[in-house]
Amino acid sequence: MSSSDQQTYERLCHHARQTALLESTRHLLHWDEQTCMPTPAGPWRAEQLAQVAGLLHERQTDPQLGAWLESLSAGPLAQDRHQDAGATIWWLRRQYQKQCRIPASLVEELARASVLGQAAWVEARRTRQYATFKPHLEKIVRLKIEQAEALGYPQCRYDALLDEYEPEASTAEVTQTLDALRRQLVPLVQAIADCGRSAPVEILRRQYAVDSQQQFGRQLATAIGFDFRRGRLDVSAHPFCSGLAPHDCRLTTRYSENHFSESFFGVMHEAGHGIYEQGLSTDAFGMPLGSAVSLGIHESQSRLWENMVGRSPAFWEFAFPIARQHFAQTLADVSLPELHWAVNHVQPSLIRVEADEVTYNLHIIIRFELEQALINEQLTVADLPGVWNEKYRDYLGVTPQHDGEGVLQDIHWSGGALGYFPTYTLGNIYAAQWIAAFRQQHPGWDDDVRRGEFTPLRDWLSQHIFRHGQRFLPAELVQSITGGPISPTALTDYLRGKLAPLYGLSQ
Amino acid sequence: MSSSDQQTYERLCHHARQTALLESTRHLLHWDEQTCMPTPAGPWRAEQLAQVAGLLHERQTDPQLGAWLESLSAGPLAQDRHQDAGATIWWLRRQYQKQCRIPASLVEELARASVLGQAAWVEARRTRQYATFKPHLEKIVRLKIEQAEALGYPQCRYDALLDEYEPEASTAEVTQTLDALRRQLVPLVQAIADCGRSAPVEILRRQYAVDSQQQFGRQLATAIGFDFRRGRLDVSAHPFCSGLAPHDCRLTTRYSENHFSESFFGVMHEAGHGIYEQGLSTDAFGMPLGSAVSLGIHESQSRLWENMVGRSPAFWEFAFPIARQHFAQTLADVSLPELHWAVNHVQPSLIRVEADEVTYNLHIIIRFELEQALINEQLTVADLPGVWNEKYRDYLGVTPQHDGEGVLQDIHWSGGALGYFPTYTLGNIYAAQWIAAFRQQHPGWDDDVRRGEFTPLRDWLSQHIFRHGQRFLPAELVQSITGGPISPTALTDYLRGKLAPLYGLSQ
Repeated sequence: MSSSDQQTYERLCHHARQTALLESTRHLLHWDEQTCMPTPAGPWRAEQLAQVAGLLHERQTDPQLGAWLESLSAGPLAQDRHQDAGATIWWLRRQYQKQCRIPASLVEELARASVLGQAAWVEARRTRQYATFKPHLEKIVRLKIEQAEALGYPQCRYDALLDEYEPEASTAEVTQTLDALRRQLVPLVQAIADCGRSAPVEILRRQYAVDSQQQFGRQLATAIGFDFRRGRLDVSAHPFCSGLAPHDCRLTTRYSENHFSESFFGVMHEAGHGIYEQGLSTDAFGMPLGSAVSLGIHESQSRLWENMVGRSPAFWEFAFPIARQHFAQTLADVSLPELHWAVNHVQPSLIRVEADEVTYNLHIIIRFELEQALINEQLTVADLPGVWNEKYRDYLGVTPQHDGEGVLQDIHWSGGALGYFPTYTLGNIYAAQWIAAFRQQHPGWDDDVRRGEFTPLRDWLSQHIFRHGQRFLPAELVQSITGGPISPTALTDYLRGKLAPLYGLSQ
Repeated sequence: MSSSDQQTYERLCHHARQTALLESTRHLLHWDEQTCMPTPAGPWRAEQLAQVAGLLHERQTDPQLGAWLESLSAGPLAQDRHQDAGATIWWLRRQYQKQCRIPASLVEELARASVLGQAAWVEARRTRQYATFKPHLEKIVRLKIEQAEALGYPQCRYDALLDEYEPEASTAEVTQTLDALRRQLVPLVQAIADCGRSAPVEILRRQYAVDSQQQFGRQLATAIGFDFRRGRLDVSAHPFCSGLAPHDCRLTTRYSENHFSESFFGVMHEAGHGIYEQGLSTDAFGMPLGSAVSLGIHESQSRLWENMVGRSPAFWEFAFPIARQHFAQTLADVSLPELHWAVNHVQPSLIRVEADEVTYNLHIIIRFELEQALINEQLTVADLPGVWNEKYRDYLGVTPQHDGEGVLQDIHWSGGALGYFPTYTLGNIYAAQWIAAFRQQHPGWDDDVRRGEFTPLRDWLSQHIFRHGQRFLPAELVQSITGGPISPTALTDYLRGKLAPLYGLSQ
């Protein structure tokens, strides 16, 4: 390789690092908006975010960057996409080409519309008035269609939006995977409804002091491996994890005194995201080798710790005595099997973030279908609440009493995140594939968990996922770890395996 | 005026507003660094701040901006510096000319050195090891000398740095004012030392539960007029107020259980800054007409509420019953006159932020002299701790036992803020001039305070100071409000008037 190639590559990396710095400033503006900012400052924050989005777009479409990428793409450094330089060049070129297709004005308009849309959504959700949110959503859908058209797509508009969150995925393939999953889940939900047993969910609705929830959540997040010296846990309306900077990963949750699961599994979930972020290369922070592969892979980390670990019988053998220290009175008459069953109850419900592991995926499939219809202009924003309610009746057998527990429940669309939802279920599918592969290699895992020893799983994830950054695409990661393709079978096997004994089903 | 002038002026204002947006992003990075950011993320934050400082400098030295300013300066809009357009053009031109003199590399280097310097200072202060901080301070002093030389100055290097905080002030004039003040204060301190009476300061060192301190501080800050719907109160190592955005003003404080004054008067002080920020025009946020005049004027607001209001007998008639609700046991055997005397005790001490209203100014004079000596290269950073200790012995009769209670106590130099300290005492002087003028016009003020009615003072400040933004320079404000020049007499009169009855001095 010529020394000039090496020099160009170094310049490219320096440029990308500067972009990562600015991107991380953008993330701080967002984090602060959700956790700290006084509400009346929203319009100004929208302008700040639009400005930073514009500056970022300017950097990301810098013609100098394009020239470096073109020159490198033909050379030896770009030969192998699975090597350090090859992966870096491939991803940066992909981003550059995508960014160049979107006009700066659209970038700024989207940034602004997202902040204003979120503020309107918060208000609409509080007052259960879809009308407050409707004009914002109309604008956002219009801008997202514009974005998809600007980006271009192989088969359908939705491909362009999905690609933002799950790179190189296609709507057709995801549809096929989710359909296969649904065909397995619907009879499982039915079998549970028909079995005549119901979980003692009342336990979860008792009084859990918020202080104790905070301590318990922190203690267990620390136990599974989230490093609070390099992170935080705050409160926000919609929980999230933000990997703001190297050594600065922030989780949020929300607490309600009569709802044990919401905060606890929320913290486990976000800590799972955080463990991934903290496990990425700090030297390559914000660069392809120090970034998460996709949102689906990110979600596989949160689901793994929230569900495959956090809802397992072995985990509660470890956690139950600790829970009883924090909630002595509340749990005085509760046995370990009862609590374990309660946190694994399955029952169709209205709110996605409170849904059980099985029906959760049906919530996602509804959103996946609806956002495709919006983007393909087969459904208007005005008709959305009605169709939402119909689908809930058809797929889950439940009907929202108001839009607050219906179409207004999620933050995503208000922030311009259309194409995002399917990554949640992809995350569940990947996570089940990871834990199946890991268990084969670590037959003593349940014993480790009973002792509160979570290092083997973290080390395995680090070795197979974290350390690679974006070296492999999601399907490549699945292939290298499981030896096969993306498939929902591991997820349905895992769910049946856990739920059959609880609900007395045949396996 | 030509319509082209008007167009140019609108472009200028749009440009300045965009700069204000980016500046406010920079402030958020700083606020977060002090309040939320995990320590290991410091080096990355330094890079972020350097990047934003570079982007800001690029905007602030934009040749297009220079062209607009030159063209406008000759026209009718710039005729009167006390009119809206005139003030805006004058200040923007002043900033533009100053910024153009500083190379971008120096701006970025200073931003980086400040963040790293602050991190080193935190560590040095904790371990009381000046050596940890010394190389950073050497670098900072070198960069500030470079900055002063680049900016240029009428008489001495320190003029250039002082001008950053107190625009158009001169070192010679400030020296004269502070000397006059010192000549009055030294005999007052001596008289108090000789009077044989001592305040019951033990009261302030009793146990004050942090929770109750938080509630009490918030309640009183709200009472005097800080609007928490448009602001926050957080915890940081060094208390500050940051007017981050329109409707987003954030205060910080720190709590220790055995130290009533530190947090309470800290909150009153920062709330004073906050009331000024919240009183500035939100439409002109970050523009000359929506910005504070100077740090001295800003400090006059914090001192006014902390001392002239918060340490007055009338205020404690209002606040004492509230304090007894929050600290029932701690204050059970304390009378109102005792508490009032305790919070007005005068005694030479080592720590500036814990100093009383009288000796505080001697702490400032020491720093003012030392930073001039550093900048004029009459004192090395290596010799600084020794000279610090000497001055404390000479001026205050006390000697630090270690550098943690000596030269390492303040954050300012670590963040590159040299030239800042004298604005604290200027603030005391201005505040005394304001309250004297206000009292003449509002003879019933003490009765208002006793009833917890603080609106008359806020309205008066709004009318005479807040609404003008930077329309008037500090000396012009003093002239228009008091009919005379900046003078320490009002401050010494106020101090004697309050302290003489407490310490049995002749007035």
